[in-house]
Amino acid sequence: MQTSIGLDFGTNSVRALLVDCADGRELATSVFHYTHGDMGVIIDANDPDLARQHPGDYIKGIVHTVKRVLDQAGPKSGATVVGIGVDSTGSTPIPVDAKGEALGLQAPFVDNPHAMAWLWKDHTATREAAEITAAAAASHPEYLAKCGGVYSAEWYWAKLLKCARTDPEVFAAAASWVELADWVPAVLTNTTALDKLSRGICAAGHKCFYSEEWGGFPSPEFIASFDDGILNQARASMTQPVINVSQSVGILCRGWAEYLGLPEGIPVAAGAFDCHLGAIGCGIRPGTMVKVIGTSTCDLAVTPLAGGLTDIPGVCGVVPESVLPGHFGIEAGQSAVGDIFNWYVHKLQPGEGLNHAELNVSAATLKPGESGLLALDWMNGNRTVLVDQELTGLILGLTLHSSPGEIFRALIESTAFGARMIRDRMVSCGVKVDEVICCGGISLKSPLLMQIYADVFNCPMKVSASEQTCALGSAMAAAVVGGAQENFDTAVASMTRIRDEVYMPIPENVAVYETLFGIYQQLHDGFGLREGQRNYFELMKDLIQLRKAQRAQA
Amino acid sequence: MQTSIGLDFGTNSVRALLVDCADGRELATSVFHYTHGDMGVIIDANDPDLARQHPGDYIKGIVHTVKRVLDQAGPKSGATVVGIGVDSTGSTPIPVDAKGEALGLQAPFVDNPHAMAWLWKDHTATREAAEITAAAAASHPEYLAKCGGVYSAEWYWAKLLKCARTDPEVFAAAASWVELADWVPAVLTNTTALDKLSRGICAAGHKCFYSEEWGGFPSPEFIASFDDGILNQARASMTQPVINVSQSVGILCRGWAEYLGLPEGIPVAAGAFDCHLGAIGCGIRPGTMVKVIGTSTCDLAVTPLAGGLTDIPGVCGVVPESVLPGHFGIEAGQSAVGDIFNWYVHKLQPGEGLNHAELNVSAATLKPGESGLLALDWMNGNRTVLVDQELTGLILGLTLHSSPGEIFRALIESTAFGARMIRDRMVSCGVKVDEVICCGGISLKSPLLMQIYADVFNCPMKVSASEQTCALGSAMAAAVVGGAQENFDTAVASMTRIRDEVYMPIPENVAVYETLFGIYQQLHDGFGLREGQRNYFELMKDLIQLRKAQRAQA
Repeated sequence: MQTSIGLDFGTNSVRALLVDCADGRELATSVFHYTHGDMGVIIDANDPDLARQHPGDYIKGIVHTVKRVLDQAGPKSGATVVGIGVDSTGSTPIPVDAKGEALGLQAPFVDNPHAMAWLWKDHTATREAAEITAAAAASHPEYLAKCGGVYSAEWYWAKLLKCARTDPEVFAAAASWVELADWVPAVLTNTTALDKLSRGICAAGHKCFYSEEWGGFPSPEFIASFDDGILNQARASMTQPVINVSQSVGILCRGWAEYLGLPEGIPVAAGAFDCHLGAIGCGIRPGTMVKVIGTSTCDLAVTPLAGGLTDIPGVCGVVPESVLPGHFGIEAGQSAVGDIFNWYVHKLQPGEGLNHAELNVSAATLKPGESGLLALDWMNGNRTVLVDQELTGLILGLTLHSSPGEIFRALIESTAFGARMIRDRMVSCGVKVDEVICCGGISLKSPLLMQIYADVFNCPMKVSASEQTCALGSAMAAAVVGGAQENFDTAVASMTRIRDEVYMPIPENVAVYETLFGIYQQLHDGFGLREGQRNYFELMKDLIQLRKAQRAQA
Repeated sequence: MQTSIGLDFGTNSVRALLVDCADGRELATSVFHYTHGDMGVIIDANDPDLARQHPGDYIKGIVHTVKRVLDQAGPKSGATVVGIGVDSTGSTPIPVDAKGEALGLQAPFVDNPHAMAWLWKDHTATREAAEITAAAAASHPEYLAKCGGVYSAEWYWAKLLKCARTDPEVFAAAASWVELADWVPAVLTNTTALDKLSRGICAAGHKCFYSEEWGGFPSPEFIASFDDGILNQARASMTQPVINVSQSVGILCRGWAEYLGLPEGIPVAAGAFDCHLGAIGCGIRPGTMVKVIGTSTCDLAVTPLAGGLTDIPGVCGVVPESVLPGHFGIEAGQSAVGDIFNWYVHKLQPGEGLNHAELNVSAATLKPGESGLLALDWMNGNRTVLVDQELTGLILGLTLHSSPGEIFRALIESTAFGARMIRDRMVSCGVKVDEVICCGGISLKSPLLMQIYADVFNCPMKVSASEQTCALGSAMAAAVVGGAQENFDTAVASMTRIRDEVYMPIPENVAVYETLFGIYQQLHDGFGLREGQRNYFELMKDLIQLRKAQRAQA
């Protein structure tokens, strides 16, 4: 038997998954909860935008989880492991010295949050992101075209610039900044030194303005155009080729091999972001859209490099090989999905209100359109396709009879319509989408949501059989670099599965949702686009007509 | 001492109020809860639109309440009474025989709801109202111009037509139909016989298409145009002059005088609708708008007949002398105000949520605009100025941080904006509004709402000192017809008072609400008017800018 290990670095914990390379069977898994900060996130009571992580948690997490899965799998299981794969949140850059050692682990900086990993959801660099967007719009619009038109405060260069301005001492001590997804493989293979460090295409392409189209990372002149050259120390460290998850960054070094009980010399795959490897764990291929549905969503699709691909307006990122080698990776997402439902349940019902299950039961008794309600799912802004964090949510069609179950269903439907806008945009730009495979907590917990999505998309909604698709995707990359799978085609075919239950569209619901989606689109464009002027007079009436028609049915 | 009695026939009960004619001091009051149906309303489990009342409840109510106030006021108090005034809900027509006796009190019909009083809120005649609207639009648009452009299912002719179609036997037995506000004075003065019956201008003008402009009640030809002539039996009974509340319908007959312990021969004033006499009880005069704020609102203003008045588009009714003799009476209203707050508290919080008081406390901590929320107050349609029951409510600006207190404040503000649309429409058509006097439960219970109204209106909000302004207004009419007051000018000056606490506009809030009202108007016109095409892109952004500015303040 050949096995591989996937390491999945999340926001609050790290998971290791040991799988059978032949069929993806999950042999053992273990989770380590980070010990620093608030559930692993170092926060600042005076600045709600700040979110950091301690690099020591990553190291401890590797040790605890790998040892435990090998223990679970039994004696000598370590000898069957052919490779390791890594995914992480991102953009989560870590300031490092010239040897690639994290500053946050070194004496002068151990208590300084600015020397820690800048977690993906750190939003302190909003102003810097706007400056970078403006600079790119002025001189390199092609940079923005690959990332949806707006550079985000969550991303690499914005965070570096913010650190340079906030804590010059830390910034000066950092020879470079390394994405968490790149740093862990480098640590395991002892290749953290900047002249040996491999960076993965996923983080580089989606967050760092890297593209072969313009010769790699952005030009020093561009960087100097917004930061007076201060970031070029980091830029100058980017000398090694950028690689994808079918390539290894090196071999597991002796020290780590002995310590963990693994064979010395097994390869460690290039790292990538969690959702990207999660898409592989779901079985992504051309024609398959993967939706990771949690507090927010991440939506991924791939299309062969050979076919070419135009830019997709409003889609967060289009990067060659960021998901599947040999394919363009296309990433989009909704800023809030589960968070909207949690807001309704917990924030809007301060007393003992209805819980998720009760609201689902109540919402499930309704026919589409029966409530007369329609919502815009922008309670946390809109990531795709409008790329506008200053949009807000809306509920239309309220009457004195509107009930919690009706509103809850309208909120679910609004996220389905927002999801369909993303699918439709991809399709309109030449990306084939024949089926959707979902993963993430909500895809398992809410059959009602899944059925509504099937009806709104008018296509089958499948659910991944794995409940840890990110770690599985990492283990699949490990199987490929370890030679246990020939390539990702074979790995996807043999190591991923979907659940037996597939949500099929119900024709009569499809027809009603087509009407509702037409109204949603009018609201979407009217409130979301500067040029989206509309006549809204008919909207409320159309909803009432639909409500009457649906209620009149038996 | 001279006293007078006001009788106020409400939806669930009747109240008698004994006042001192010199100063309006309330000497005694008594309430009788109707005994039939569900809290006085006869309903039908199979038809939620049906709402009727038993005429026997009115009779019993007179006896109980008048006897009790005289008991309370002490021996011989009956001898001080100089007159009786009557107000009631409406349009609440009662089918009667040629002697004016209510069919519902007669043997063949005692259990038949169609033979009872058709309570104002009976909505069974929706289709008939639409037919009447269409007929008037085709041949007599001037009829519609006086009642806001749409004839309502709550009104006289629609209810008659519905009865003719639903229960021809009852309809055939009815020699005529008499408004409750006209029937009670006729009963007390023994003038119910159709050739003696006086009808009041308030009900006739607002609900029956009566106007001196076209020679009185609508032409038989017009009525035949929508009903094949069936309603002309009722139309033919309308032979007596129509009178206003400064005139008496007759004198208290001996039987009633002896039975109640009142002087024989005291005059009974013509009846009017509750809100109209309530406005008099509040002290209405030119320049004063009266708002009766309860589950819905009724808004009233007057302007001298001598000055003339154009039609006011979208305002429910403009009728000479329907409120104050010598003046045009202008009636408008919002379909839901308190009902919106009750919906939020009771329907949207099915568990133990926050009550009204807690939500008020929470909402009161916010500055205007701070929540970024804006609502349209159309959860029960829009009565004025859009006259469209198929409009629905909307909440804009929702985020994952939006809280119940924020939403509750936005709902209060939405009703204030809706109220301002009415005030502004009246003013734009030449009605002077210098001050607002409020009455009704909410004006007493919610200082927060009153302050917001003062800020949104940018004018002082006063509250009537009387908590039964309708009965007081009726007693004032009684004082006038009884000769204890010279006219309504003197009665208003000496018999009405406002509370000491006046809500004054707060300049910094006024400025913010001016901005918010501008956004509200755009939503109002965009969703409410067929030609109201708008570009909504800026609306969410404007709200966020305002939110930021307000939060940035100390």
